[in-house]
Amino acid sequence: MKKVVIIGSGPAGHTAGIYAARAGLEPLLYEGWMAGGIAPGGQLTTTGTVENFPGFPEGVGGTELTMMMRAQSVNAGVEVLTETVESVDMSKRPFTVKTSEGEVEAETVIVATGAIARRMRVPHEDDFWQRGISACAVCDGALPVFRDQPLVVIGGGDSAMEEAMHLSKFGSKVYIVHRRDELRASKAMQDRVLANPKIEVLWSTTLIDVKGDSALTHVVLKDVKTGKEFDHEAKGLFYAIGHNPNTGFLNGQLEMDSDGYIITEKGTTKTSVAGVFAAGDVQDKTYRQAITSAGTGCMAALEAEKYMNENPL
Amino acid sequence: MKKVVIIGSGPAGHTAGIYAARAGLEPLLYEGWMAGGIAPGGQLTTTGTVENFPGFPEGVGGTELTMMMRAQSVNAGVEVLTETVESVDMSKRPFTVKTSEGEVEAETVIVATGAIARRMRVPHEDDFWQRGISACAVCDGALPVFRDQPLVVIGGGDSAMEEAMHLSKFGSKVYIVHRRDELRASKAMQDRVLANPKIEVLWSTTLIDVKGDSALTHVVLKDVKTGKEFDHEAKGLFYAIGHNPNTGFLNGQLEMDSDGYIITEKGTTKTSVAGVFAAGDVQDKTYRQAITSAGTGCMAALEAEKYMNENPL
Repeated sequence: MKKVVIIGSGPAGHTAGIYAARAGLEPLLYEGWMAGGIAPGGQLTTTGTVENFPGFPEGVGGTELTMMMRAQSVNAGVEVLTETVESVDMSKRPFTVKTSEGEVEAETVIVATGAIARRMRVPHEDDFWQRGISACAVCDGALPVFRDQPLVVIGGGDSAMEEAMHLSKFGSKVYIVHRRDELRASKAMQDRVLANPKIEVLWSTTLIDVKGDSALTHVVLKDVKTGKEFDHEAKGLFYAIGHNPNTGFLNGQLEMDSDGYIITEKGTTKTSVAGVFAAGDVQDKTYRQAITSAGTGCMAALEAEKYMNENPL
Repeated sequence: MKKVVIIGSGPAGHTAGIYAARAGLEPLLYEGWMAGGIAPGGQLTTTGTVENFPGFPEGVGGTELTMMMRAQSVNAGVEVLTETVESVDMSKRPFTVKTSEGEVEAETVIVATGAIARRMRVPHEDDFWQRGISACAVCDGALPVFRDQPLVVIGGGDSAMEEAMHLSKFGSKVYIVHRRDELRASKAMQDRVLANPKIEVLWSTTLIDVKGDSALTHVVLKDVKTGKEFDHEAKGLFYAIGHNPNTGFLNGQLEMDSDGYIITEKGTTKTSVAGVFAAGDVQDKTYRQAITSAGTGCMAALEAEKYMNENPL
């Protein structure tokens, strides 16, 4: 039986691993085999240079950062398995973690499976992903390539409004492309956005393709009322249409919100099942940064250790 | 007037700086001049190698890590001033931040002034600080020098019990030195500790000095009932007698707990004053790690940005 099983291999999973290993808990970490359609390391592997993870004055490659975290995890004594967890039986402790290769019992489980940014999946999207297209304005907005350039945000909720406000400090103009003729965002956020001279909402419009050369130059939009299609200049395209947390394999055994995010006791990583902890983006729809994920990974390991001290099997 | 003033220069302060600068908020960060009796960079500067900050497979020096965070902050556009903040007028917004050199108005303030671990200040303590003496079992317990060696923990509260349990996985024996003949810790934690064959409580005993050569070898203890003094072998000495958060300069303007920690809305960095945020150890008596501090620094910057979007001056 394992004391700690960690599911996920992004900053939250590996930070939990480092702390659990250093606490002598000999953790087992499942990094997954393209789990959630993404490589071990998680969303960081889909980004270019990370400039906002503290400790790297010149920035660090997303994939490089995940590889260093993995190496540190292994150095600390974490056992890393490249298997995808298919299900976890949380009905009794020890919990049973099942993969395609077998199953293992666990005194505690840390779920750190992340979330995947939704994309529109327009025809040429993959050609310009991270060459102008991003799913994180906070991460990428400050890049020099976007300075004083026309930028486009897709979405109509509070997050989209916040991203547009954020981007308006950098771009020459920010266009919010929204398929309806009203926004879903709160009245207060709408007022701010509509009053911002650098932001313009393109109502009843939808993205149908992207164009460019070595990087994005235009988005192809469609007016959903007239059916007319047209090119629109854009050096940056930011998806703000939400994320899908990777929680399907839990089969609803943990309390989740309507979007499938795991609900944790505020200020902790405790889930609705004692002995199961959740860290990183799988329980965070607000901050969603590598550094906040890593912080909650640490918290989960410390809480798992404390839980076992207080509740020995 | 500044949009964001950050007070403090540890992982929380600089991560807040990096995020605020990248959001175009042109933050001003006061790193202090030996504020709280500690160099810019905070508690990390008093530690040797940091092995648990994710991203550094071989570990990184504490001072080196703080210098890299500072460099990254400056690269991102943070204005860093080496002045100590003497007071902040939070009675009205904009807030007024006063230093020995002058004052500045701020739309939002992020307090990230940290906390200092309490020490016993016995005669030869400085000679063996980080050469066997530590104030963080979670950080340092796994170091090879402590493996299968006699270790001593000073304290009688829940934290001391948790640190002793943690260290019992590494040391040959863990002695809890406690000046009273009963513990302050919860009954559950006491039961665990007293049942652990690798832990022994030295009741009614107090630390009066430390001895060693290149590193710690003995603690000098005193039986407070008999007055007898004696040497006790110890390769590690861990203070678990609490921390002093650096909040005196706030003059009670923010809601704090009885130990002087700033109270934040759980799961956020919001303080009792709208527009003032707190990040890092100054608001965290539970986790107290560089990585958790950095995470809350990021949160504070994102929350300050959102706050200003929703509440423009």
